Amino acid sequence: MSSMTSTVDIQQAVTTDAFDLGPARALSCRECGHRIPLAAEFACAECFGPLEVSYDFGDITRESIEAGPRSIWRYRGLLPVPSNVREHPNTEPGMTRLVKADRLAAALGLKSLWVKDDTGNPTHSFKDRVVAVALAAARELGFRVLACPSTGNLANAVAAAAARAGWESVVLIPSNLERAKILTTAVYDGALIAVDGNYDDVNRLATELAAEHEDWAFVNVNVRPYYAEGSKTLGYEVAEQLGWRLPEQIVIPVASGSQLTKVDKAFREFGELGLVEATPYKVFGAQATGCSPVSTAFKGGHDVVRPVKPDTIARSLAIGAPADGPYVLDAVRRTGGAVEDVTDAEVVEGIRLLARTEGIFAETAGGVTVATARKLIAAGKIDPDAETVLLITGDGLKTLDAVQDQIGPKATIPPSAAAVREVLGH
Amino acid sequence: MSSMTSTVDIQQAVTTDAFDLGPARALSCRECGHRIPLAAEFACAECFGPLEVSYDFGDITRESIEAGPRSIWRYRGLLPVPSNVREHPNTEPGMTRLVKADRLAAALGLKSLWVKDDTGNPTHSFKDRVVAVALAAARELGFRVLACPSTGNLANAVAAAAARAGWESVVLIPSNLERAKILTTAVYDGALIAVDGNYDDVNRLATELAAEHEDWAFVNVNVRPYYAEGSKTLGYEVAEQLGWRLPEQIVIPVASGSQLTKVDKAFREFGELGLVEATPYKVFGAQATGCSPVSTAFKGGHDVVRPVKPDTIARSLAIGAPADGPYVLDAVRRTGGAVEDVTDAEVVEGIRLLARTEGIFAETAGGVTVATARKLIAAGKIDPDAETVLLITGDGLKTLDAVQDQIGPKATIPPSAAAVREVLGH
Ligand SMILES: Cc1ncc(COP(=O)(O)O)c(C=O)c1O
Ligand SMILES: Cc1ncc(COP(=O)(O)O)c(C=O)c1O
Ligand SMILES: [Zn+2]
Ligand SMILES: [Zn+2]
Repeated sequence: MSSMTSTVDIQQAVTTDAFDLGPARALSCRECGHRIPLAAEFACAECFGPLEVSYDFGDITRESIEAGPRSIWRYRGLLPVPSNVREHPNTEPGMTRLVKADRLAAALGLKSLWVKDDTGNPTHSFKDRVVAVALAAARELGFRVLACPSTGNLANAVAAAAARAGWESVVLIPSNLERAKILTTAVYDGALIAVDGNYDDVNRLATELAAEHEDWAFVNVNVRPYYAEGSKTLGYEVAEQLGWRLPEQIVIPVASGSQLTKVDKAFREFGELGLVEATPYKVFGAQATGCSPVSTAFKGGHDVVRPVKPDTIARSLAIGAPADGPYVLDAVRRTGGAVEDVTDAEVVEGIRLLARTEGIFAETAGGVTVATARKLIAAGKIDPDAETVLLITGDGLKTLDAVQDQIGPKATIPPSAAAVREVLGH
Repeated sequence: MSSMTSTVDIQQAVTTDAFDLGPARALSCRECGHRIPLAAEFACAECFGPLEVSYDFGDITRESIEAGPRSIWRYRGLLPVPSNVREHPNTEPGMTRLVKADRLAAALGLKSLWVKDDTGNPTHSFKDRVVAVALAAARELGFRVLACPSTGNLANAVAAAAARAGWESVVLIPSNLERAKILTTAVYDGALIAVDGNYDDVNRLATELAAEHEDWAFVNVNVRPYYAEGSKTLGYEVAEQLGWRLPEQIVIPVASGSQLTKVDKAFREFGELGLVEATPYKVFGAQATGCSPVSTAFKGGHDVVRPVKPDTIARSLAIGAPADGPYVLDAVRRTGGAVEDVTDAEVVEGIRLLARTEGIFAETAGGVTVATARKLIAAGKIDPDAETVLLITGDGLKTLDAVQDQIGPKATIPPSAAAVREVLGH
């Protein structure tokens, strides 16, 4: 792979047949439009802008998608993965439930609400989607080690996918991560390394290591353009599961901002390909106040996102220097949405509200999404009469610390019916 | 409902139109065959034997199933639930992944191995299946409170399903349960009560309470005949996902023994209905040595299962007096299988083996299944050349304590590339 990144290759034709990455044709710079052949590159050689996959989609129909497997691989014709992606061991995330959430809707004062419950993925977060795509692309690009810096969920997904594929993994996490996220990474038996520092420190270290180790695919660093495309599948699935149409409003948690921009991209692609009617939709971003650089920029009317030092219980969203922050602002402003942030107390209340109304136990990121939706409704920014989707992207079992002081058994009693009657008051 | 249990009703015709429970026609005694109308009954009035649902299946085809939803409700024509089951809020468990496990197969010396990964269910265990069926039946039978005694997973599933349905729940657990299982029940905000005692104590208390509270549906007590049928869906799905055929060998964890007997029943029903060819299969039961009453009876050649006092880290399987123990022995002996048990150390090794080969993190019950399979292969009881399925029925995130002393980061380091190189030795 690293040979593909030499200047000689970059000077070559803008498309290449060297790799089978399905409909992907080139990488192009999001800032200046410069195109290079498909390779393990992530920054533009001309302007240092982020690279993104360019495609030549063939004939994609609802029928061809519906005939595919019940996983993200049904959308392989829209992803930068080899056409034979299913022949190599990988996880099979996706096609998680889209739940009609009438009780939560009533609690929030919404007319029509859906919850996309991505806790059903193999390691219980949406990160399985991006990692599966990154693994498939990395294999084709010639890598044999899967690596990442992570706020937790990505660590779980990378370690699990590498285990399934029989690859080595190198996973870097902040040492203060939730116990559950540490153990459920360690169990897959890759090289898990705890780093004294916050996520942004860990991320810098990963960038340094990626340059040193040419056979390590850091999913969110040197193969990030491929990886990021995996989040499109969240958007595809929402549209397909709604019966091939777009929702009017969608609320998405923001860490690096990648997911939000890719869901927006998915909706646009589906419209352009004629898979859905290109009806208008609004994209809303959700952050925790303790790490809300994008929300701050949005509310201040800025185009630039100023890095912050995170301090929030929503550790999976604790990215103080969000790589895709400016693109989040673009997508939200273009669609008429907003970015908002909520306190840690509101996050916990969001988790509990979702649990008690819909029986879905989300991690702190899900609490951020629910609480932000509530705040945006109160502020009149989310229209209560327009159909709304909330993306619940991670699992409550991984962030038990966030709720443990507020919930528990009603009582501990001896095994007697009288004691039960006393507890329940009847 | 309790009026339905009076002797007058029991003397009525053996079928009834009073309830729409789909293809279910009556309850019949597994011991003496005595039939009663559909009702909230669980023990035979003649002989105290357990009651089971009798059906009159209509015309069920592969096509009619395939046209159904991607959840257990695709099998509603084979379950004791109202035909309009999907019109009421309930969870939608099922259609979890059947994973081709080539790396685990290689590690175990098997030719062809599949893992049914039921951690993908809404609360991450197979209990969502039985609870969804119990809730649907209980609603039709007139109940409005969902209750259970539980070793943990059932508690999660009952509390979540009740929350989604807007029902009250009363959940009784042993007070020494895993922290994760307590919190992820409490978060749904029902009446969770911790009981000082083991599961068998809690179960006795539940039986007493069920008699007192005629509007409480204890899913695994007074509506147990309906509830138990939910486990059939595991068998249906395995057969459908294999491409409408039966596996040759299947390994199933045993607590009360219900799940094992129902998977066996599912395979037989599919054969009888012509949905699959009725090829021979062997059913194997898996227990932890610290709670292995069924394994002990099997190995001793007994028909009677002698209760034990559980002492094992596999707390979800820690039922010392298994209600369906004798039927497990029947199914295993009839099919030519076996029941085996494994130590707690083997359970942990089973969890780790599955994680490192397939990227699937199971709870202790899954460790029991994997380790038992390994032991049965070594003993020559599982044929390494015959196609095998392992049921992984619960999630590792709920039993972190079992593995925490043995796994963790390789090292905790400052954020420097040199430190990483030192840890990895290159
Ligand atoms: C559960 C969860 N949701 C959402 C996100 C946000 O992802 P992104 O970095 O794409 O904004 C993350 C990132 O780690 C996450 O773990
Ligand atoms: C994860 C898991 N697997 C298997 C079982 C066994 O179920 P059964 O009681 O039907 O034998 C249980 C029971 O609680 C369980 O929690
Ligand atoms: Zn550029
Ligand atoms: Zn009887």
